[in-house]
Amino acid sequence: MTSLLDVQGYDPRTGAPVGEPVPASSAEEVDRAARAAAEAFPAWAALAAADRAAVLEAMADALDAITDELVAAADAETALGETRLRGETARTTGQLRMFADLIRRGQHVDAIISPADPAAARPDVRRMQGPIGPVAVFSASNFPLAFSVAGGDTASALAAGCTVVVKAHEGHPRTSVLVADTLRAVLGEAGLPADVLGLVHGFEAGGVLVRHPAIRAVGFTGSLRGGRALFDIASARPDPIPFYGELGSVNPVVVLPGAAHARAAAIATEYAGSLTLGAGQFCTNPGLLFVPDDTALLTELARAIAGTSTGPMLNERIRNSYVDTTGSVDLNPLAEGTPADGAWSVTPRTWSVDLESFTAELDRFTEEIFGPAGLVITYSSVGELLPTLSRLVGSLTASVHATDDEPDAAAAVAAALKPLVGRLIYNGWPTGVAVCWAMHHGGPWPASTAPTHTSVGGTALHRWQVPIAYQNWPQALLPPELRDDNPLGIPRLTQ
Amino acid sequence: MTSLLDVQGYDPRTGAPVGEPVPASSAEEVDRAARAAAEAFPAWAALAAADRAAVLEAMADALDAITDELVAAADAETALGETRLRGETARTTGQLRMFADLIRRGQHVDAIISPADPAAARPDVRRMQGPIGPVAVFSASNFPLAFSVAGGDTASALAAGCTVVVKAHEGHPRTSVLVADTLRAVLGEAGLPADVLGLVHGFEAGGVLVRHPAIRAVGFTGSLRGGRALFDIASARPDPIPFYGELGSVNPVVVLPGAAHARAAAIATEYAGSLTLGAGQFCTNPGLLFVPDDTALLTELARAIAGTSTGPMLNERIRNSYVDTTGSVDLNPLAEGTPADGAWSVTPRTWSVDLESFTAELDRFTEEIFGPAGLVITYSSVGELLPTLSRLVGSLTASVHATDDEPDAAAAVAAALKPLVGRLIYNGWPTGVAVCWAMHHGGPWPASTAPTHTSVGGTALHRWQVPIAYQNWPQALLPPELRDDNPLGIPRLTQ
Repeated sequence: MTSLLDVQGYDPRTGAPVGEPVPASSAEEVDRAARAAAEAFPAWAALAAADRAAVLEAMADALDAITDELVAAADAETALGETRLRGETARTTGQLRMFADLIRRGQHVDAIISPADPAAARPDVRRMQGPIGPVAVFSASNFPLAFSVAGGDTASALAAGCTVVVKAHEGHPRTSVLVADTLRAVLGEAGLPADVLGLVHGFEAGGVLVRHPAIRAVGFTGSLRGGRALFDIASARPDPIPFYGELGSVNPVVVLPGAAHARAAAIATEYAGSLTLGAGQFCTNPGLLFVPDDTALLTELARAIAGTSTGPMLNERIRNSYVDTTGSVDLNPLAEGTPADGAWSVTPRTWSVDLESFTAELDRFTEEIFGPAGLVITYSSVGELLPTLSRLVGSLTASVHATDDEPDAAAAVAAALKPLVGRLIYNGWPTGVAVCWAMHHGGPWPASTAPTHTSVGGTALHRWQVPIAYQNWPQALLPPELRDDNPLGIPRLTQ
Repeated sequence: MTSLLDVQGYDPRTGAPVGEPVPASSAEEVDRAARAAAEAFPAWAALAAADRAAVLEAMADALDAITDELVAAADAETALGETRLRGETARTTGQLRMFADLIRRGQHVDAIISPADPAAARPDVRRMQGPIGPVAVFSASNFPLAFSVAGGDTASALAAGCTVVVKAHEGHPRTSVLVADTLRAVLGEAGLPADVLGLVHGFEAGGVLVRHPAIRAVGFTGSLRGGRALFDIASARPDPIPFYGELGSVNPVVVLPGAAHARAAAIATEYAGSLTLGAGQFCTNPGLLFVPDDTALLTELARAIAGTSTGPMLNERIRNSYVDTTGSVDLNPLAEGTPADGAWSVTPRTWSVDLESFTAELDRFTEEIFGPAGLVITYSSVGELLPTLSRLVGSLTASVHATDDEPDAAAAVAAALKPLVGRLIYNGWPTGVAVCWAMHHGGPWPASTAPTHTSVGGTALHRWQVPIAYQNWPQALLPPELRDDNPLGIPRLTQ
């Protein structure tokens, strides 16, 4: 039995502890949480979609009602600030309501009916999606609400009919407890088992959870190293389970010559804003910026970066890693921002490198630096740029800045980047992921461990579903989604 | 450098070699095939869906045109017989045509448009599915056509826009070459690279293929041991890739008391037919049959099994494994069939065991025996049966035989089995998987390595797709599937 460290939250502005530590979950406690989620599963899965939707909306209402308390708790542990955290609360409750709306419409069960064809001796086959079972969700450090206990993974899994055990992030344990208590109270008030949503704490709890036989799938947002370790555990189980990990991303941005000439100042300002937003602690942070080498844009970039300043980073480990990594970069500094006040504040930093040097050490330059650090790569022609773009590592996003007069170049850059990313952005920046049905937030490794899936947007729900086909069942024994009279009025494909 | 054994096909009726051996592919040859598939990918992926559909249909036509030759080649290497192999040819070309039809309709790209919402500062996001890249497909032993070179995995991957390198099964190398040559000729005639479809041979080629950096996903149908080994390779890559493996399945069948009384003779005859069909060499073989202990059904089963006989098994290894495994079963024999002529013929065998003894050694009794071997478990009441059913291992299918007078028992059995299987069958047998849009052929481990996906049916195509989201792109630079005017007229969701 190894000793378990309690989980202590800290104030990034001062480095001082926030409140009492939260006890780390023992292996026995994790086992109990996973079993409880398995016991709660049949009741939750059997609820009509409309009833599950009502519970998700009640959860959203309950969180909205304690916005002040949530913002205060999260700000104390992350220093992300009130404006951001009010927005994040709204995003979190908005996600819960989006998935409630989605399952009310019934599109998510993807019902297909293939009627019998006696001539071909083909039986009646009807297929729909249902919940995969109890799942584990690993919270992220950088979204203490929207990618945490009540975040997108939890919301989509609950909507699918799965029960959830959340592994709280060590950076915001008290915020996590507050949110979990709120959701569990809503479940209890609805007459449902509170264990539809469980919470465990501590590094060691994570591995125990992913190994647990009752857990049928895992959602994860975090570092490449941590995600890979857990993916390996999930894959090495006697019965491997799906692991949906969102890991690192460098999010290349290409500024085409026309755009660089026409909008140098605006692009520079927007880039500086995107790079330093939230102290650069976004998986969609624009880590690589490709710009023409003969425009005023470099000067404008230097100006814009010099004007930046960011709040403290989320925790001491992230801060130290940023300082060490950026300190060891032996490239031409382009510009630096100003460190803000706060114990774990850092300096926004950018470097420039020409395309040839960048291409020569592609692997080294395409490792993600978590924080407000950007590499600006100068190119002389789009034709010269394309082969390098097509060799980049997988990312969540790629962006192209162009004018209406360079559609061919924009199309060529998009074609080169499309196989490498999950989202292509035109004249915009990767930070700020819109929560909408069409969003795709994923991509090839290492952006994601599961390139066929997304962790944001309406289709994120599909990660937690397994299909089942009913062959020749009497109407009375079919689920309502598949009965001839379609009592729920859901969209179905008959083919 | 290890030595590579040539791949020799054998006639299961005589044990004699069929024709000259096919050379095993060296690591260099596998590398060449994977690179060629990667080079062919952009051209194939860029084809309009209607043009890809036309090529799939031309492939189906070309295979239909050589049906006699295909049946002769496959029969020589598998001894599955002309009737079965003509049916399998039709199924194979039917699958190619089904996927052609499916991609012409455009449903498969799952287009979702989330229009901009300026009030919420939300951008325009449009999402569709596209091909994941070049993929590897491992042929199965037991379907030399329908789960082989031009089988369902290949058809669905080609339809998705992926190029494919097939690892031929060692049991039917010459059939594999014939099919691959036919498909490659069709590609050449269509002015496309023949390497849209490549073929490699030999055990060692499989591992090299799954490790190859150009390969983006793997489809596999075969044994638990082989599938697990390749799954582990795919998951341990520096960049893990999706591995869609269909492995073992015991396919429980429950006969309820009413059905056992009302239809004992018919159920017994149908069971014997399903158990021994194709010498029991189906992943949907009904390995476990649960029957009431107080009816004439056991007697009828013994009678029906005694009347069975099967052709030879597919190869010597499978035959020896069947003989060894069934020889070591220390249970009460229920009945045996008669061994047919042929070098690798075997005896259909069944045993009976009471529910309590079965439950006591569940793990041992739920290991798949590949071939015409069945375990008949006797129960005294449905209430006593349910807890055991809910502890069974994952399977592709479960079947319930009931009368109209026992809907509650049928519903209870279905509820217990539903979390464990991909398809629930009412008053039918698991063998004979209908190829239709609604079919689901998958299930929890070990039925499948990817429980969220299917290897048969319209949605099998989704295994080979990755989503991409376009944010704020001008109409002219969007793919036609996502343009406002919907020039292809495909179904889309705007939300």
